[in-house]
Amino acid sequence: MSLLTVGTVAFDDIQTPFGHAERVVGGAATYIALAASYFTQPIQLVSVVGDDFPSQTLEQLRMRGVDLSGLQVKEGQKSFFWAGRYSENLNHRDTLETQLNVLADFDPVLPPAFRQPQYVMLGNLTPAVQMRVLAQLDTRPRLIAMDTMNFWMDTAMDELREVIARVDVLTINDEEARQLSGEHSLVKAAKKIHQMGPAHLIIKKGEHGALLFQRHDEAIHGSRIFFAPALPLAEVFDPTGAGDTFAGGFMGYIAATGDLSFENFKRAVIFGSAMASFCVEKFSIDRLLELDEQTIQQRVEQFVHLVNFDAQLA
Amino acid sequence: MSLLTVGTVAFDDIQTPFGHAERVVGGAATYIALAASYFTQPIQLVSVVGDDFPSQTLEQLRMRGVDLSGLQVKEGQKSFFWAGRYSENLNHRDTLETQLNVLADFDPVLPPAFRQPQYVMLGNLTPAVQMRVLAQLDTRPRLIAMDTMNFWMDTAMDELREVIARVDVLTINDEEARQLSGEHSLVKAAKKIHQMGPAHLIIKKGEHGALLFQRHDEAIHGSRIFFAPALPLAEVFDPTGAGDTFAGGFMGYIAATGDLSFENFKRAVIFGSAMASFCVEKFSIDRLLELDEQTIQQRVEQFVHLVNFDAQLA
Repeated sequence: MSLLTVGTVAFDDIQTPFGHAERVVGGAATYIALAASYFTQPIQLVSVVGDDFPSQTLEQLRMRGVDLSGLQVKEGQKSFFWAGRYSENLNHRDTLETQLNVLADFDPVLPPAFRQPQYVMLGNLTPAVQMRVLAQLDTRPRLIAMDTMNFWMDTAMDELREVIARVDVLTINDEEARQLSGEHSLVKAAKKIHQMGPAHLIIKKGEHGALLFQRHDEAIHGSRIFFAPALPLAEVFDPTGAGDTFAGGFMGYIAATGDLSFENFKRAVIFGSAMASFCVEKFSIDRLLELDEQTIQQRVEQFVHLVNFDAQLA
Repeated sequence: MSLLTVGTVAFDDIQTPFGHAERVVGGAATYIALAASYFTQPIQLVSVVGDDFPSQTLEQLRMRGVDLSGLQVKEGQKSFFWAGRYSENLNHRDTLETQLNVLADFDPVLPPAFRQPQYVMLGNLTPAVQMRVLAQLDTRPRLIAMDTMNFWMDTAMDELREVIARVDVLTINDEEARQLSGEHSLVKAAKKIHQMGPAHLIIKKGEHGALLFQRHDEAIHGSRIFFAPALPLAEVFDPTGAGDTFAGGFMGYIAATGDLSFENFKRAVIFGSAMASFCVEKFSIDRLLELDEQTIQQRVEQFVHLVNFDAQLA
């Protein structure tokens, strides 16, 4: 089943304790599309790049079933560029530079073939742009997920709330969930965020895993809760794109199965976590270009072993 | 099966965003003994208090099957006292005051009936005192676990390493695992800590759960790994004692079952996590005095629901 995604397709400059990747391919939509492509094709990608973006990467995306007819290529302009540096323990990153370039006046245009998607993943972008994508849909998708970040909470909260009110799944990190809700307890935060619209909230905690909340009146504190750990890795090389990769794996799995039950959402969170665990093993999208179904399935089995226990009382 | 534990029995003064508990009962051995008492009795407790310690608390411990014949009561002296204040989000705490009092020259003496325990839990204490407890044992226990903290890594690393070399299970938090091993990756840290002696390492991550590593040459990076989440709670009232309560639940469950398989260690980690989730719901030991088997079993079932998923590929 087709999945529509909008987000950045960009260049990153990344400094980690393990090395420096200069002007490598990044962008939320790039990671989302590649991760999702292992579960469902085609991926309908809506974004914008300058004429500096490598045709080789575009070809790699096409090879993985990504439909680029919604990708605007602006002649004589430059692609979005972000430079960041991670701390020694990778838990913190500082933005060194942001060049909006083509993103400054990005007006997403959906080709006619993109206007009836069953599944939509809104990558982190200006809320107004996310909204313009939704406004071009002819039909209500079965499931709309969105990612966002604290920057939009600080600068465009009203518009952000409008988009949030229209989606089924919101993916944010724990600090963002606290900021958005004004609650420290993630259980209480989830309850407030459910009231803003999304029946599902996924709180991404990086190396500490992810929590899935589903609005449910009868369950504890108004939510059903599922927890997926992050896989303990000997080497985390570069965390950039992990959250987008998670979202792409999650929505790709949902689109492939077409099953919106809580049981299947749980599996989708595990597959998203598995995809994210690959993403961080190499710089840029390198690891996401070389996977196969068996490798992904083996990684999912590691998650099973990691959390599986027999609860019989002694 | 009997469980021997050594650690502080003390007073705490605790400030959290939710209130101030003045001079309430605390201490590592107190929490360990109470948590373990729900799984196995008697608990043989080795510690020291002054004559200011409330006889009512000692009676509560006896009622829960705690054998206090190894508890020294020092006439005319004061019990160990710790005062701390938690940050707004409970993720950080500052020590405001520490009065060693009776702990300053604590020399643990094991009654003859305490010298052949099958299971030992060394609560956080001066490594030399932990060692003096081990030195008084007539036989090698089936399983020795120990807790410690960064303070001893800073001030008594040589003695700490001697104790660590003699135990089977080490419980520390993630930052302590990194400090002890010099490795940021917890997978690599576990490998190094296994080489120091303990075949099992439990890394306590507070609200982010706990990781169990078992030395195993054939498994990934030299460890079998199990992850237990912390239960997402709407209200965390006071984190004090959560790590000790975890350790007490863990070792109590092991002692009750007598099963040292990895499968049973996983269950023990879940039961320890369940006990810790109760501890934080009220100040001091209050919540640990009012539990019963059914309440604990219901909480364990919440952990099952939290992490259980069916991994069938779509």
